[in-house]
Amino acid sequence: MIKIAFDVMGSDNGADVAIEAGLKFLETHQDLELIFVGDEKEINQAIDKHLPKYKKVNKDSFSIFKTTEVIDSHGSILDIRRKKDASIVRTLEMVRDKKVDAMLTAGSSAAFIAGAQTIIGNIPGVKRSAFMPTIPSTVDGKVLQLLDAGANLDNTAEELLQFSQMASVYATAVNGVEKPMVGLMNIGEEASKGKELQKSAYKLLEADKTINFYGNIEPREILNGVVDIMVTDGFTGNIALKTAEGVARSVGHELKSQVKKHWWRKLAVLQMIPTFKAIGKKFNYKNHAGAILIGINGIVFKSHGSSDLQSFGATLRMTYDAVQNQVLDKLTIGMKGYIIDGNEK
Amino acid sequence: MIKIAFDVMGSDNGADVAIEAGLKFLETHQDLELIFVGDEKEINQAIDKHLPKYKKVNKDSFSIFKTTEVIDSHGSILDIRRKKDASIVRTLEMVRDKKVDAMLTAGSSAAFIAGAQTIIGNIPGVKRSAFMPTIPSTVDGKVLQLLDAGANLDNTAEELLQFSQMASVYATAVNGVEKPMVGLMNIGEEASKGKELQKSAYKLLEADKTINFYGNIEPREILNGVVDIMVTDGFTGNIALKTAEGVARSVGHELKSQVKKHWWRKLAVLQMIPTFKAIGKKFNYKNHAGAILIGINGIVFKSHGSSDLQSFGATLRMTYDAVQNQVLDKLTIGMKGYIIDGNEK
Repeated sequence: MIKIAFDVMGSDNGADVAIEAGLKFLETHQDLELIFVGDEKEINQAIDKHLPKYKKVNKDSFSIFKTTEVIDSHGSILDIRRKKDASIVRTLEMVRDKKVDAMLTAGSSAAFIAGAQTIIGNIPGVKRSAFMPTIPSTVDGKVLQLLDAGANLDNTAEELLQFSQMASVYATAVNGVEKPMVGLMNIGEEASKGKELQKSAYKLLEADKTINFYGNIEPREILNGVVDIMVTDGFTGNIALKTAEGVARSVGHELKSQVKKHWWRKLAVLQMIPTFKAIGKKFNYKNHAGAILIGINGIVFKSHGSSDLQSFGATLRMTYDAVQNQVLDKLTIGMKGYIIDGNEK
Repeated sequence: MIKIAFDVMGSDNGADVAIEAGLKFLETHQDLELIFVGDEKEINQAIDKHLPKYKKVNKDSFSIFKTTEVIDSHGSILDIRRKKDASIVRTLEMVRDKKVDAMLTAGSSAAFIAGAQTIIGNIPGVKRSAFMPTIPSTVDGKVLQLLDAGANLDNTAEELLQFSQMASVYATAVNGVEKPMVGLMNIGEEASKGKELQKSAYKLLEADKTINFYGNIEPREILNGVVDIMVTDGFTGNIALKTAEGVARSVGHELKSQVKKHWWRKLAVLQMIPTFKAIGKKFNYKNHAGAILIGINGIVFKSHGSSDLQSFGATLRMTYDAVQNQVLDKLTIGMKGYIIDGNEK
């Protein structure tokens, strides 16, 4: 039985959609137990509303953990200490206390990261945790692990090496890639390119025999499936992720608006629907709305603040897959072998 | 009469396509004189081959400046001093000596930047020059000036302020935007977001009354037309630009490959061609292959190393527009008023 705590508060769209996503996911996952964490009244209302639609859901497969406080998407790091009964705090405590196998939330990123670090802490030997979304590629069946996508502002070369090691363990465990190819995100391919961080990280990654280093990779290749993992510091990774999201969304909107301008094109669009659907399925950020905070001593996932039914469903799947593939155990064992100098920074 | 020196060597596709692009552009610009700089034999061969196609071109409207050396796209900064008769060196010297109004090249970026800085130098008062491509947006008639897109690795907050000032002058002169809106590229909208650079730059930009400061802007908005200018350091700007290029190209390829998979969709595609063309025209990087190195005491443009007829045509247009709109004079006057502390760094 897999147990996941689901902080249903704090997202832009309220608890209602989170609960529905949870019930929908339970219907197809009989070995799963969900604990909805948040305001009892809101949760019960949503369950009453949505449960009748999901008839196969066993009523014993979910429960409610009542909390009285919420840290919303604008919440700060300090709220973690101020609001002891916040849903995100209680959810993280459940992971720390091993009452559940994993958790997810769509609340404030800042509060989530700070909370995970202070309440749970890192896997022994891990210097820093990193946000790691799974990004689609144009190559069928291939995905990209991008990290750090924004948990940190600055990182050292040693941290980038650890990120590469952790992502390699994850890519093998979850995506089934045998020797995941690790690329160092950079402004050029030559080893001499980039700032001091990139130059130092290049040397460390090249010398490390536990990973399969591709070399520098420009973010032009972000969707090409050339590598399985792209590693960079949190600031740069966040810029790249948000640029990619923005461009994919803008091109999609542009397509829609061009079609609307010329109604007769709608006839053609009808025939094109399978094409658009196939592309949409691949590149729609809603199917990739979740990111693991990798390096934390527990499976903890963040879903987009604006998550809807589809986004929450995708993040639930990622969380479930991480538990089923024993990502935490594999990371813990892996990082024992990988520790660079044995000293915490 | 506008005079532009065109370094036709050093691009991945050879002089042939550069020459054809030049002749094609001359056909529709009677007030233009082009000087093709490079290997005499190659240039003459290309002229003999392509001139018959462009019957309206006046034979007095172009000339050849012979050079014996080439710095190709892998050329280094040192080549600028080593190869005194390199086409890029001679072309930059023509700008320095005011023999032409502007120049363009598709050769090595590193050699071009170093050459422009050492051979021509900066506009008085300008601390650093910056690569500034013009990026399309989903809003009709609106474009984005992104800088620095990679001329520098690191920048100071003062440099980001100067970049904003120069880009504002350019956006008004070339794009006709009255009070261009300047956004500071960052990982979040709040003033407290980002690294020290972003925090300091935010304060400087906010306090400066010569520019119209929007605040922080996430690169999710890169194509949305929310701002006219996005300013950031060279490393971050290069990452964002290359991510955007990569995603736009991948989505385009995916569309093509999905259509190919199902031949019957081609019927629909025929009807969709105007839609695709409209989007292609907007987002095709070939139409935006050029970038000015703004801050240099002369109009100097770089076209993609892999430029084809379309890309070279677009960069020629940008170069021509910059001259016609007296960008250099306006920048020189503007930066006199803008100089922050009067001292070169």
